[in-house]
Amino acid sequence: MDLREEALKLHSENRGKISILSKVAVNDSKDLSLAYTPGVAEPCKEIQKNPDAAYEYTNKGNFVAVVTDGSAVLGLGDIGAMAGMPVMEGKAVLFKEFGGIDAFPICIATKDVDKIVETVVNIAPTFGGINLEDISAPRCFEIEERLKEALNIPVFHDDQHGTAVVVFAGLINALKIAGKSLKDIKVVINGAGAAGIAIAKLIINAGVGDVVLCDRKGIIYDGRNDTDVSKISIAKITNKDKMKGTLADALAGADVFIGVSAPNVLSKDMVKSMNKNSIVFALANPIPEIYPDDAKEGGALVVGTGRSDFPNQINNVLAFPGIFRGALDVRATEINEEMKIQAAYAIAGLVSDDELNEDYIIPKAFDKRVAKAVALSVAKAAIDTKVASYDVDIKELESKLNKIL
Amino acid sequence: MDLREEALKLHSENRGKISILSKVAVNDSKDLSLAYTPGVAEPCKEIQKNPDAAYEYTNKGNFVAVVTDGSAVLGLGDIGAMAGMPVMEGKAVLFKEFGGIDAFPICIATKDVDKIVETVVNIAPTFGGINLEDISAPRCFEIEERLKEALNIPVFHDDQHGTAVVVFAGLINALKIAGKSLKDIKVVINGAGAAGIAIAKLIINAGVGDVVLCDRKGIIYDGRNDTDVSKISIAKITNKDKMKGTLADALAGADVFIGVSAPNVLSKDMVKSMNKNSIVFALANPIPEIYPDDAKEGGALVVGTGRSDFPNQINNVLAFPGIFRGALDVRATEINEEMKIQAAYAIAGLVSDDELNEDYIIPKAFDKRVAKAVALSVAKAAIDTKVASYDVDIKELESKLNKIL
Repeated sequence: MDLREEALKLHSENRGKISILSKVAVNDSKDLSLAYTPGVAEPCKEIQKNPDAAYEYTNKGNFVAVVTDGSAVLGLGDIGAMAGMPVMEGKAVLFKEFGGIDAFPICIATKDVDKIVETVVNIAPTFGGINLEDISAPRCFEIEERLKEALNIPVFHDDQHGTAVVVFAGLINALKIAGKSLKDIKVVINGAGAAGIAIAKLIINAGVGDVVLCDRKGIIYDGRNDTDVSKISIAKITNKDKMKGTLADALAGADVFIGVSAPNVLSKDMVKSMNKNSIVFALANPIPEIYPDDAKEGGALVVGTGRSDFPNQINNVLAFPGIFRGALDVRATEINEEMKIQAAYAIAGLVSDDELNEDYIIPKAFDKRVAKAVALSVAKAAIDTKVASYDVDIKELESKLNKIL
Repeated sequence: MDLREEALKLHSENRGKISILSKVAVNDSKDLSLAYTPGVAEPCKEIQKNPDAAYEYTNKGNFVAVVTDGSAVLGLGDIGAMAGMPVMEGKAVLFKEFGGIDAFPICIATKDVDKIVETVVNIAPTFGGINLEDISAPRCFEIEERLKEALNIPVFHDDQHGTAVVVFAGLINALKIAGKSLKDIKVVINGAGAAGIAIAKLIINAGVGDVVLCDRKGIIYDGRNDTDVSKISIAKITNKDKMKGTLADALAGADVFIGVSAPNVLSKDMVKSMNKNSIVFALANPIPEIYPDDAKEGGALVVGTGRSDFPNQINNVLAFPGIFRGALDVRATEINEEMKIQAAYAIAGLVSDDELNEDYIIPKAFDKRVAKAVALSVAKAAIDTKVASYDVDIKELESKLNKIL
């Protein structure tokens, strides 16, 4: 059986990948009177008096909506809300397996930004957090911003921020090997969709001195005739030398290439034009912007991809389960830049100096330490930046996480 | 510990009552490549080609949204969406335990009818059915009608139709004891909210000859100065003698009293004024319209309540799990009158003629045969009325249900 057949078999023999589990027994009238009427009225009344009691008496604090409109699903593009369901269920599986989080797919049958925002706001009482998934750029930016504004629970677009966190984690360690520092490097990002824009913002906030974004039309600069608001605004904080030209022009003398774009767009010659000890993250999937061997032949010191069959896989699963775990556990009202940056340092920190080498800059997807370490760092950062609304002792949180993760 | 303390303890020690279960293992890269990228793209593509494939490759066909706006929760009234969450989680527990159905609470943060309808339509791709819950009348009628119009999956307001089905099941058997037939009886329903209106419609469709509805203002008749559309329209199909007056006036010479109203509103004298071998269903909870002993002293032959500590408990859990099970299994596009009527006959039919007596007209809530029998009857009725969109062999369905229920 090939991958296609195996995947279809897995999905059809289980009729999907998630179901609902009852946490309480209902075997007799007594059980029923506690879990349902009349006993259930008591937690209802407590929540009516104090909305925060929902975190104590319901599963709200562990429910995350995985929200999509199906407009940018994997590499498949706009396949519609219902066709995105297998991915959303898959995401829910990963939330559960890696973060102990109860995520539920919400596939939204409209691509209208206003209606998506209103729908998510309307169903928010059930949830402790919102994970946006596979929504096309630039709509994803507006949807996320407006939801963050409207809601006091974390709203996180994983395609943007999950990717940015893991890329940044890889970059932290790759720079150690290259002997370079964040503030001195020039980074070229190819691809100015959800991931590219978010990576640019995060690494600039984290201290990278010079970032240049490219899209299909070449280098993005302030004043280029763009109509996409996200490109116009990112142009103002990137490309400080106001370069114009092609991706090749951008790369000459750059230290880092980050591709979130398309197969085979980076040539060996372009890598050769980069600075010594260059770093190449070629994340297009399944066919990267350049294959690792070619990048190395072009002079790259460290190469990462999105694939599990090459070294240094940049995989979102390293970030989102722990980020949400930490945010939920302190009832953070948002997931801010500092929380994301600390998540990246937590991931990078799991690779010890002894282990660190060109082929091991980032933990493996199944490294059980990751979600816990990320959750703790994120929780601490939430407390430090005063977005935690629930008072948690970090030591106690650690022992709780040791039990559930 | 009293009930209140026990109920709060149960809810807080579990942090609510439901969680998400992953149906697939994710222990290594191979698992990940099937349940998530890249393998997950295959079922996505199949669903994109053919939307019905969502029933094969995802859990859609077993997902039911339990939708509330928190406006009429139990006897608590309008406590808000989030405070309704314990009831919705409880409902999800019952869906799972009794029907093997994966129900998920959707607590909607608006009471605007247009917005509730739009929200539910927008999130419908995830679900195989919609269960409306604890939404106040008369808004519940419009919301249900508009959702039925907009969606091609079953939409069912349990407070209306679940109650109506179980009341009708009890009535079928109570009439056997009383030796009366549907078409000859006069039924008085006290309470013209969601349940009262739905009971009236269902028993009229099922063949009851004369039904009179009362509310706080007394008997509802065509031409009374009502503004509530549901009362104006029910007046046209009930009260064929155009009676006016009080509940007491309505009851003189009636055969059946069905109370879905308020504590202690039915007096012994009123029962005395009813026909011989009268039937009293006093369903206000926890304090019924009349206590069983008083009703019997007034001359009632059969008395039912909503309580588990008296005989003949009229409990919705006898209906909704099986109704949805049957509807989902044949992918019914709606739950129509015939399906509800057949559900009631299935419930009533589980009490054999040998067992039938004044104190046992309806199966117990924990009778394991109920959901299965209801599901099969509902599936058959869906097929017969041509609202089943999936071709199922009833024998095969029966053996499947024997396994899961």
